[in-house]
Amino acid sequence: MANIDSASVRVFSLNCWGIRYLSKHCPQRYAMIGDMLCKEEHDIVLLQEVWSEKDYLSLKKKLACSHPHSHYFKSGVIGSGLAIFSKHRIHDTFVYRYSLNGYPYMAHHGDWFGGKAVGLAILNIGSLTANVYVTHLHAEYCRDKDSYLPHRVVQAWELQQFIRHTSAGADVVIVGGDLNMHPQDLGNRLLRTYTGLRDSYLETDKFDGCEDGLTLIADNPFITKKELGPFEKGIRIDYILFKGSPKADILCDFMCTTKGSVPDHPFPYSDHEALAVKLRLKTKTLTDAGSDNQSKNQDSAAGKVAELVDIVTEARTEVKVGLHCAQRMRYTAARTGVMGLALLILELAIAAVPWLALGAEQPFPRTSFYLLAALCFAILLTTSLLYIFYTMELKSLQGAEDQMRLAVGSLQEKLRGFPLAQPHNPQRRSPEGQEPNAFEPEE
Amino acid sequence: MANIDSASVRVFSLNCWGIRYLSKHCPQRYAMIGDMLCKEEHDIVLLQEVWSEKDYLSLKKKLACSHPHSHYFKSGVIGSGLAIFSKHRIHDTFVYRYSLNGYPYMAHHGDWFGGKAVGLAILNIGSLTANVYVTHLHAEYCRDKDSYLPHRVVQAWELQQFIRHTSAGADVVIVGGDLNMHPQDLGNRLLRTYTGLRDSYLETDKFDGCEDGLTLIADNPFITKKELGPFEKGIRIDYILFKGSPKADILCDFMCTTKGSVPDHPFPYSDHEALAVKLRLKTKTLTDAGSDNQSKNQDSAAGKVAELVDIVTEARTEVKVGLHCAQRMRYTAARTGVMGLALLILELAIAAVPWLALGAEQPFPRTSFYLLAALCFAILLTTSLLYIFYTMELKSLQGAEDQMRLAVGSLQEKLRGFPLAQPHNPQRRSPEGQEPNAFEPEE
Repeated sequence: MANIDSASVRVFSLNCWGIRYLSKHCPQRYAMIGDMLCKEEHDIVLLQEVWSEKDYLSLKKKLACSHPHSHYFKSGVIGSGLAIFSKHRIHDTFVYRYSLNGYPYMAHHGDWFGGKAVGLAILNIGSLTANVYVTHLHAEYCRDKDSYLPHRVVQAWELQQFIRHTSAGADVVIVGGDLNMHPQDLGNRLLRTYTGLRDSYLETDKFDGCEDGLTLIADNPFITKKELGPFEKGIRIDYILFKGSPKADILCDFMCTTKGSVPDHPFPYSDHEALAVKLRLKTKTLTDAGSDNQSKNQDSAAGKVAELVDIVTEARTEVKVGLHCAQRMRYTAARTGVMGLALLILELAIAAVPWLALGAEQPFPRTSFYLLAALCFAILLTTSLLYIFYTMELKSLQGAEDQMRLAVGSLQEKLRGFPLAQPHNPQRRSPEGQEPNAFEPEE
Repeated sequence: MANIDSASVRVFSLNCWGIRYLSKHCPQRYAMIGDMLCKEEHDIVLLQEVWSEKDYLSLKKKLACSHPHSHYFKSGVIGSGLAIFSKHRIHDTFVYRYSLNGYPYMAHHGDWFGGKAVGLAILNIGSLTANVYVTHLHAEYCRDKDSYLPHRVVQAWELQQFIRHTSAGADVVIVGGDLNMHPQDLGNRLLRTYTGLRDSYLETDKFDGCEDGLTLIADNPFITKKELGPFEKGIRIDYILFKGSPKADILCDFMCTTKGSVPDHPFPYSDHEALAVKLRLKTKTLTDAGSDNQSKNQDSAAGKVAELVDIVTEARTEVKVGLHCAQRMRYTAARTGVMGLALLILELAIAAVPWLALGAEQPFPRTSFYLLAALCFAILLTTSLLYIFYTMELKSLQGAEDQMRLAVGSLQEKLRGFPLAQPHNPQRRSPEGQEPNAFEPEE
């Protein structure tokens, strides 16, 4: 082999569940997390749900020696909750705020206020440029009736766009975070297939952690059975993904997760399990990069493009469902607003009649009048705000749908360039003509 | 020369001033624009302020033959107003919404509702991949007391970030739009110096258009003298910028602008002048790409990095000014809110006293009570919304400031790598030690 340089990188990811005064044992858990990170000295630490900047700053202080470089990604009202700590110097950062992230009136779910985003930090590991992404997508509260599914699909779409478009100059790409998606969920397939990112749990040589790599488990004392629904053992929603480039190979030597408890401590670090991987980076020479067997590559490339067409089409369908829903909601808001306005006009007419025609013959019901008027105003204000909100939601969904349509067209065009793989029907692959699938069911 | 391939690309950019029912002669002007674009057959057409999707769709219909590929970038409540029409197939699109864009209560300026953004379309021109960007930044309403300056600087910062991070895989980069900045304004210098983009007006071989390349001119009948302020002749705020890559060179052969009127028509296309350039793309061979004289490059690279440190530092200062302002505004909102609350409590106490102590001895001033209560509620609601808005503004400004601080640190680190250019004082270049400036005052 012509690999001339090799480096080992340890990456850590954890959803810290850091809602001050609401998350259980928050300060104690942050202290535990800080101690552990200081001791373990991972190269790159990706944290989610660090909602308070104060907690970030105290972690930064604690990790000043082990991780001299760090960045906290700010966005929205509360913040994105995303933070990165690194042994390697961070040269540049960038943040992308997802256009959709739940509804402000679903305050008990709270996602909207978080300003969910994806953060990018660019760092040099030896001679290689690494693009490191940390993100946190909208939570799934009810899998059977998941009203947030279109939002999460659009987030996954924007995440893959952001990664694809910003990583062209990178030698290696590392993505960590809480995707809030099961391994075979639409958004996850979209992300991995479009970007070519590989899942460290599936790629690792050795694994030490929860069964099936679960990261939200029944054994964790902060998790209730209700949260897991039909998945009694738990679910895998936290990931560390990676990919190389023509300049560098990347492999996963080892992966581990916490298992619901921490030795010598009364409770775990968080309601999510922590992930840690040991990646090996290998610099490729120019000859190395060019020598991959081309004919085999072309076949599998055609297969991947065809698979991608299917996945993007599926995502488009999901976004269309969201579009219909948003349109209906906007219509309802508009109708309710018109009714509120009609009620107000009616009330004003009733109020005007005694003055104009009957005079002060009977006492005017002042209190009811004011209360009803206040109600009408409240209805008008609320429905106006909702109408604006749903219009913005519609714009974002339509935008994503437009981009997906364009992408499918472009991918189909690309598919026509593979004469063997798609001889007669380049528009749509037939069920018999399935290309080798790069991502077989995994678990 | 080892250039093996050459292609000519004509790019057009226009701020269409397309506010339905408000902009003068809007439908007639769209018809004129459509006819002209159909006839001229530019390769790439970049439009701004196409606020209505209906107008985009009617243009799309009209240009179906000349420009079969197009995309409308959706964002915000109204939209971004950005559209691209192309002769070449658009393979992929992406949109980035600026985190700051004025204030919602400045409704007469309207920028906030526009959801300003930068749109990216990736297209293939021959064998080359071109990243084409179209954008529109926040308007400048009063140059002496420009309260939007920090917002525009952050927009310029995010624009350069977006272009830098997404264009690594591109062979050529083309940016067009209404930047709402004079050629030597901070945001403009930041954009050009950081990305290496070149200004077609300064680079063109031949030019036919308004004096000094002005794009907002006194001769345009839609422009009032007041709008131009002290710049009686006009200002240059619309640009077409470009840059090549190691794989391709790009040159500007010709540039032209409209001159305030259109022959055989009663009025011009818009209140802005239209820009058109003819660019020449030259594919470089591998030997070509490597053979640029290296030692000269290193000197000018050090100079550019030092210049960049200065510009980013200047931008940081501007963002800090914005931070102080936002903090003050948030404080004022909080104080007013507290006063509203105090007034409400006082009022309730006064209302409670006659019931509790004096009974119904004197008539209760019901109407005043309700009016004052309504006022207090209105104050509380408004100040709460403002408080949330200013918190988000602060988060975005702080985020940009953090990123700038990190960038300056990283650039200074880079500067230490140039031993000759910065022998003794790598932190900050001394006034005497000025490196050759890549962008001398231009006009």
